[in-house]
Amino acid sequence: MAGKWEEIDHYARQWIEEAGRRIRASFTEQLTVETKESRNDLVTNVDRGIEQFLAEQIRRQFPGHHLLGEEGFGDELAVLDGIVWVIDPIDGTMNFVHQQRHFAVSIGIFEDGIGQLGYVYDVVFGELYSAQKGRGLFFNGKPLDRLQPVAVAESVIAVNATWLMENRRLDHRPLVRLAKAARGTRSYGSAALELAYVAAGRLDAYISPRLSPWDFAGGMILIQEAGGIVTNLDGKPLDLLSRNSVLAAKPGVHEEILQRYLQH
Amino acid sequence: MAGKWEEIDHYARQWIEEAGRRIRASFTEQLTVETKESRNDLVTNVDRGIEQFLAEQIRRQFPGHHLLGEEGFGDELAVLDGIVWVIDPIDGTMNFVHQQRHFAVSIGIFEDGIGQLGYVYDVVFGELYSAQKGRGLFFNGKPLDRLQPVAVAESVIAVNATWLMENRRLDHRPLVRLAKAARGTRSYGSAALELAYVAAGRLDAYISPRLSPWDFAGGMILIQEAGGIVTNLDGKPLDLLSRNSVLAAKPGVHEEILQRYLQH
Repeated sequence: MAGKWEEIDHYARQWIEEAGRRIRASFTEQLTVETKESRNDLVTNVDRGIEQFLAEQIRRQFPGHHLLGEEGFGDELAVLDGIVWVIDPIDGTMNFVHQQRHFAVSIGIFEDGIGQLGYVYDVVFGELYSAQKGRGLFFNGKPLDRLQPVAVAESVIAVNATWLMENRRLDHRPLVRLAKAARGTRSYGSAALELAYVAAGRLDAYISPRLSPWDFAGGMILIQEAGGIVTNLDGKPLDLLSRNSVLAAKPGVHEEILQRYLQH
Repeated sequence: MAGKWEEIDHYARQWIEEAGRRIRASFTEQLTVETKESRNDLVTNVDRGIEQFLAEQIRRQFPGHHLLGEEGFGDELAVLDGIVWVIDPIDGTMNFVHQQRHFAVSIGIFEDGIGQLGYVYDVVFGELYSAQKGRGLFFNGKPLDRLQPVAVAESVIAVNATWLMENRRLDHRPLVRLAKAARGTRSYGSAALELAYVAAGRLDAYISPRLSPWDFAGGMILIQEAGGIVTNLDGKPLDLLSRNSVLAAKPGVHEEILQRYLQH
C-alpha cells in the first residue's frame, strides 16, 4: 500500500489550498466573532465554515477515516485506531481577527496513533510546511535541512508572556530563569505557526502549558520529521486525546530545558 | 516647494526597493555575525553594507541632507536642523540571522525635527508601510483607515517578555498588570515592524523601555499619520537625538495605559 499516503497527501493539499482561498476571500466580508471558554478565546464564522468544509471533504472521500476538530464537526473519539485527521481550521484566531495574518491551517494525519502526514499552512504569506513520515520536512515543496543541536544561550524561544508572569497553570519561575538565559523570546500568537518555525529552524524551542490536540498535531509531525523533539513539560510523549503541556525544540536545547530548567 | 517631498519620496522608495533586493540576495551568501553592546545585540555584514549603500545614495543625491544611522555611516548630530534621514538598515537583526524574516528596513525623514516621510519595509513578505505628513498611511500603495479608539481589555499589545520579568530598566509590575488586563501580548522581535503593525491597526499598542532613534523614527511617522499616538512612557514627546522609552498606541488605549498603568 505504498500509494495510500500519496493519495491522502494529494487530497489534503488540494483541500488546504481551497481552505486558504476561502479564508483569503473572507477578508472582504463581515466577520462574526464570538467568545468560547473565556473572553479572549475567539471563534468566527470562518473557523466554523472551514472546518465544516474540510470535514465534508474527508467524509466523502475517505468515509473510513476519523476526525478530531476544534470547532465541533469532528468525531467523539475514545481511541486512536485507524486513520485520524486532527484539524485546526484557523490556529491563531485572535490574529486572524485583529491582524488578518499570523494564523495557519493545521492538519496532522495519524494511523493507529502514529503521525504520518503533517501540514501547517500560513494562508496569507502562502507558506506551506509539510512532512510525510520518513521523508523529512518540506517548505513550499523544497526539502529543509535536519535540525542541529543548539544551546539555550544561543536560542530564541517562543513562549507567551502569560507563562512568564504568575499564573494559575504552572510555576512561572523556572521559565523566567530560562527566558533570561536564552538569546531572546518571541510570541507570534499561533501555536501551529510557532511549531512550524521550530521545525524550520527559525525558532529553537516552543513552550506552552496547555494545548489541545488540534493546536499541536500538524506541527508535532513537522518537528519530528525535521529531527526535533516534542514532549510535554515532563518529557513524556503527547496524548492526542487530551490537552497537553508542550515542549517542542531542537535536539540539545530540548534536553537542556528539561534537565536544567523544568526538572527539580 | 510642493515638489520637494515628492522628489525625496521618489528616491527613498527606489533605494528601499534596492536595499530589499540586496538583502534577499544575501540569503544565499555566508553571513558574518558579530555582537555589539551585549552578547545578544547582533550585527552582520549585511546591516553594514545596506546602511553604507543608503548613506552613499543620500549623500550623492542630496548633499545638504544629514543622516543618523545605526551602523556608523551617519553623521554626529547635535541638533535637528535641516533635513535628517534616520535609518535602520535591518531592524530585527536577530530575526534576520535566525529566521530570514520578521525584520524591516526603517527610514524616517525629518525637517527641523518634524517628521515628513516614514517607511517600514518588510523585505521578505514585500510589505511596504509608508506615510507622508498630512496624507495618511499607505500599505503597498493603498490608503489605510485612520485608527479608532480602543480599550485595553480589547487590545493586543506588543511587548517583549523581558519587560514583564524583573529587569534593570523599569519596574515590571505595572506592565504585568497591563499585560493581564489586555486581550493578549505579542512579541515579533522588530520594533520597526511592531510600530508599523500599530500604525496599520494590527496591534493596539507597543511598549519598550529603550529604543534608539533609528528603531522608532520611521514607525513613529507612520503611526502619527494614521491617527495614533507616540510618546515615551511618561507621556512626553520622543527625542530623536537620544534613546527613549516608547509607548505607541491607538487613541484611547494610549491614554488608558498612561493613566491607569504607568502614572502612579
